[in-house]
Amino acid sequence: MEKVFGCRGMARPIITLLTDFGLKDSYVAEMKAVILSICPEAALVNLSHQVEPFNILEGAYLLARAAPWFPKGTVHLAVIDPGVGGERKPLIVEAEKGLLVGPDNGLLIPAARRLGGIRKVLAIKASGKLFPERFTETFHGRDIFAPAAAYLAKGVKPERLGIEVDEYVDAAFPEACLKGGKVSGQIVYVDRFGNLVTNIDRRLLEALEAKPGSLLKVKAEGRKAFTVKLVKSYSEVEVGSLLALIGSWGTLELSANQDSASKILKLKAGQTLSVERQR
Amino acid sequence: MEKVFGCRGMARPIITLLTDFGLKDSYVAEMKAVILSICPEAALVNLSHQVEPFNILEGAYLLARAAPWFPKGTVHLAVIDPGVGGERKPLIVEAEKGLLVGPDNGLLIPAARRLGGIRKVLAIKASGKLFPERFTETFHGRDIFAPAAAYLAKGVKPERLGIEVDEYVDAAFPEACLKGGKVSGQIVYVDRFGNLVTNIDRRLLEALEAKPGSLLKVKAEGRKAFTVKLVKSYSEVEVGSLLALIGSWGTLELSANQDSASKILKLKAGQTLSVERQR
Amino acid sequence: MEKVFGCRGMARPIITLLTDFGLKDSYVAEMKAVILSICPEAALVNLSHQVEPFNILEGAYLLARAAPWFPKGTVHLAVIDPGVGGERKPLIVEAEKGLLVGPDNGLLIPAARRLGGIRKVLAIKASGKLFPERFTETFHGRDIFAPAAAYLAKGVKPERLGIEVDEYVDAAFPEACLKGGKVSGQIVYVDRFGNLVTNIDRRLLEALEAKPGSLLKVKAEGRKAFTVKLVKSYSEVEVGSLLALIGSWGTLELSANQDSASKILKLKAGQTLSVERQR
Repeated sequence: MEKVFGCRGMARPIITLLTDFGLKDSYVAEMKAVILSICPEAALVNLSHQVEPFNILEGAYLLARAAPWFPKGTVHLAVIDPGVGGERKPLIVEAEKGLLVGPDNGLLIPAARRLGGIRKVLAIKASGKLFPERFTETFHGRDIFAPAAAYLAKGVKPERLGIEVDEYVDAAFPEACLKGGKVSGQIVYVDRFGNLVTNIDRRLLEALEAKPGSLLKVKAEGRKAFTVKLVKSYSEVEVGSLLALIGSWGTLELSANQDSASKILKLKAGQTLSVERQR
Repeated sequence: MEKVFGCRGMARPIITLLTDFGLKDSYVAEMKAVILSICPEAALVNLSHQVEPFNILEGAYLLARAAPWFPKGTVHLAVIDPGVGGERKPLIVEAEKGLLVGPDNGLLIPAARRLGGIRKVLAIKASGKLFPERFTETFHGRDIFAPAAAYLAKGVKPERLGIEVDEYVDAAFPEACLKGGKVSGQIVYVDRFGNLVTNIDRRLLEALEAKPGSLLKVKAEGRKAFTVKLVKSYSEVEVGSLLALIGSWGTLELSANQDSASKILKLKAGQTLSVERQR
Repeated sequence: MEKVFGCRGMARPIITLLTDFGLKDSYVAEMKAVILSICPEAALVNLSHQVEPFNILEGAYLLARAAPWFPKGTVHLAVIDPGVGGERKPLIVEAEKGLLVGPDNGLLIPAARRLGGIRKVLAIKASGKLFPERFTETFHGRDIFAPAAAYLAKGVKPERLGIEVDEYVDAAFPEACLKGGKVSGQIVYVDRFGNLVTNIDRRLLEALEAKPGSLLKVKAEGRKAFTVKLVKSYSEVEVGSLLALIGSWGTLELSANQDSASKILKLKAGQTLSVERQR
């Protein structure tokens, strides 16, 4: 069985960065400085730094979406870390198709599952000559996670950086389900365009016998139901009109052609939805 | 005649990215993941991802401004794509000094003209072994344009990725003109500092016999006229005062020294202006 | 004595960029285009582009924070430049552990001090074959500073780009001091999380005999005093509660666990504070 340790065998090691640090503060640059000091050849790719502060689920969604598109062996460094300096462990998660580094709060797990599944979870031991002698209890992103990711990108084996653990904080996106001819799901994310990304996948829509051209009756909790057409692309409806389609994450999205479904419907992430086929 | 195919002969291939995707969502990272999977040696440079959603003209302006500064052979990937999944063609535009990849909606054309002119326009054929077998109808940026740009950066010839076309959507910035001693122009862009960038170039100001030190009488449609001094640099007027100068794009800008002309004048992109020399 | 000229001897030259240009406009991309035309092998790292327009002190703080984390020989390009085109000189500052390029307005000096001290300050002579024949008086970031930084990154000696000067605009952060059992300091920066970063360092807290577990009485000018516990990490207090700790810059920060101290206390950068130990 082929083993991937960091970026061995990659043309050029890649490290992605996901945080809730924003881009004004110098925190992301400090992490990159530490990484480039250890692994100057790494290609650094910002996944997102605009995650809502402390919103682990939002970070987990963005990481799980983007990570599988990167080459095998990419190191994904993710720091949404409200528990920094407390008891939560710093982790390396070895997945089939990549390595993840970040806090033990569930952030890394959905992405690891989409990277072919979890092989091994290790708690980073931030001691020894690979880590700084003193580190802060407020910025493990720079002091622990960045060096760990950089060493992995250089090809250092996870076992040299930490110790395998059996327990870690699991996390999963809420699952949609079919009940009595209706799918009950949730809005997982709202993007810049106001597209409402749900957790209702293609399989569930097929169970409803919905296909392009079908009308869907959608009811958000506490709201009036509305009807929307399932289409293949935005331009099948008029500009400004609502529509539904299977989006680029493979799940149902409520959108509007060149407009914001979020503004039109006044719906946000977390909102539960019931969807059925209009007959 | 020397031919530039992507990044052959460049020290390191460069791909610039311009979108209206913003930096919170994972869309830009997904595009970069696809590019680095194909062309890991590429230097990726964000041109802008904060273009107003669906604002093709704004994107075209930013692309046309920045592209000519990049080395010959740079690949410019631009995705402002309200028509994604519809009839609009995915294009490669081969210009004298660079290659452009994006939708056929005019976005690429002004930049191509400023890159020495258009040699050839090709419609991408997103099939064959270079492209994914299945792709979404909502995110061609990731599924069609990113692979095309990455292959061009690797040196694959445009002809292997598409077929030459004669027709494409043209686009040009509105042109300013001289009429009866007045220049009639438009605000093309408002930058972060509130500088009002117009389409009135040096030649037209010379036709007005305006030079540094001249007073300009400016009248925006539906507003009262005001007088402003043409200077060479911001610091020639007092802090907070309005001024006019030839900006870094080579056209007339209305600015304020360490202040926002846009806020002071309450003017926006698209506003028409008439400018004459105060005598 | 070992000499560092730009990036000689580095695995790969690094140039950091700090501006108040934002990320929507094409200005940062134009600077990167110029840099990559001269030094295509450079790794470009955004330090921050979201500095408040014209806020030199804010830029100086972010630069001084992040620069020391980069490898020796890194070139730091910083452009907060309200005086562009006026009398202010374009500078190269040679520090013990890095090179800085930017306007002579104090922006570079605190970072240079934290990079081991200033060896030499040079005024850039933007003439000769290394610089463009004509340049704008509004965008020296692209026309003067970017080429200078790129040549330094290539290993060109500062002396080839400018002439040593004795005088330059100095700048320093306000210093906190101990008076009659109280420390008088200032809020230097407010980050994305609402953490209030002060200029009160560990040494001054030790002079107050404050240690983890101590209660601090904090009084902002014109406000009522409040008491806050000095802790080692956020999670030592309840979610939403105020706390004080030595932050990742080595100074006292007023924070709230998973909340914004700035919002709770309604305090901003520049506000003076008096801090004493509650007995």
